[in-house]
Amino acid sequence: MVERQRADARRNYERILAVAEEEVAARGAEASLEQIARVAGVGSATVRRHFPTRRALLEAVSRHRIEALSARARELDGRSGKDGKSDGRKGEGRKALLEWLGEVVAYCVTARGLAAALSYDEGHDPVGGNSCAAALIEAGEPLLRGAAREGAVAPGVTVEDLITLAVGLTLATEHHPAPAARADALLALAVAGISPEPAAGTRRAGGAADTP
Amino acid sequence: MVERQRADARRNYERILAVAEEEVAARGAEASLEQIARVAGVGSATVRRHFPTRRALLEAVSRHRIEALSARARELDGRSGKDGKSDGRKGEGRKALLEWLGEVVAYCVTARGLAAALSYDEGHDPVGGNSCAAALIEAGEPLLRGAAREGAVAPGVTVEDLITLAVGLTLATEHHPAPAARADALLALAVAGISPEPAAGTRRAGGAADTP
Repeated sequence: MVERQRADARRNYERILAVAEEEVAARGAEASLEQIARVAGVGSATVRRHFPTRRALLEAVSRHRIEALSARARELDGRSGKDGKSDGRKGEGRKALLEWLGEVVAYCVTARGLAAALSYDEGHDPVGGNSCAAALIEAGEPLLRGAAREGAVAPGVTVEDLITLAVGLTLATEHHPAPAARADALLALAVAGISPEPAAGTRRAGGAADTP
Repeated sequence: MVERQRADARRNYERILAVAEEEVAARGAEASLEQIARVAGVGSATVRRHFPTRRALLEAVSRHRIEALSARARELDGRSGKDGKSDGRKGEGRKALLEWLGEVVAYCVTARGLAAALSYDEGHDPVGGNSCAAALIEAGEPLLRGAAREGAVAPGVTVEDLITLAVGLTLATEHHPAPAARADALLALAVAGISPEPAAGTRRAGGAADTP
């Protein structure tokens, strides 16, 4: 009986968290707790038992997203040539890094409202800035190394550079009518380069890219 | 006599504005009006006659910087092959665009504090966002066209993309100990590309960049 109650509680917790993630993704930190309870099919009291405050719920959502991005980094890193499922050919590491980076930007677009809500709430910001960035930086290291081994990333580029860029794109597109799509387009521009070195840019002029 | 008074007033105005720009660049919107008066070698009353409020001074600084950046865009565009002083060879337009973009980022780093101060002051933001961006976008158009004619910029890239990137880099590096240098390094990364197309990245492997 206690066993079953625990299993029910666990299922409720996970269902509430999953619904909360969707609501936060759609509506930012303004997501309504009542709406979350309704969609999850539980009472407000149940939501409050698991997440006594609005802040506790937002923190759980944020932690969960960061954990998911870290797990995703491990998965993509495994796929790109280390688990025997791939032939480790050129381009796989680059693809993995860029796919992950796109997901980081998508996360940042939703996390932005979270960070603002949490910092407004108690005057500090456990999600937007440093603690979140540190976990993401650690998760991204193997992906960056994989892409760098292929020569797809310039030497000296760090995961911190990439995360800072992602955060910047998010902040700069915050007031755009379609922030996620806009941030994504700008990420593509930063990935391809506003204007890569002339050697690459003038290749078409005669294929003499390797001469100085 | 009136003539001379007018000339004196004009000189004072320009000296105060020049000093204010330096102070704002060094200390952001926290720049001290007393220090500005001292360095400009005028009394506080003279500063107040020209700039009745702190806001008026910050707005003048901001307007002046935007005008300077617009003039700079015209100058760089002229140099890069239209005024007969250059041979209009490949790479000049790219160089002009990137030089200007670097100056825009440097401006944004200082303007950040201005925007915050002005929006805090009266609840709207005439500098940080739209009006400033609109003037810069117009100024940058000829430079972007020049670089695009050389094939140095991907088709479809807009000045707005570049300004939004510049603003994003500024916002994301705001809390860095050396924001200007950090924003500059990230701009260089976005210019070169985090990871340009594999064709360019694998050139070293055999020079077969133009094959699919």
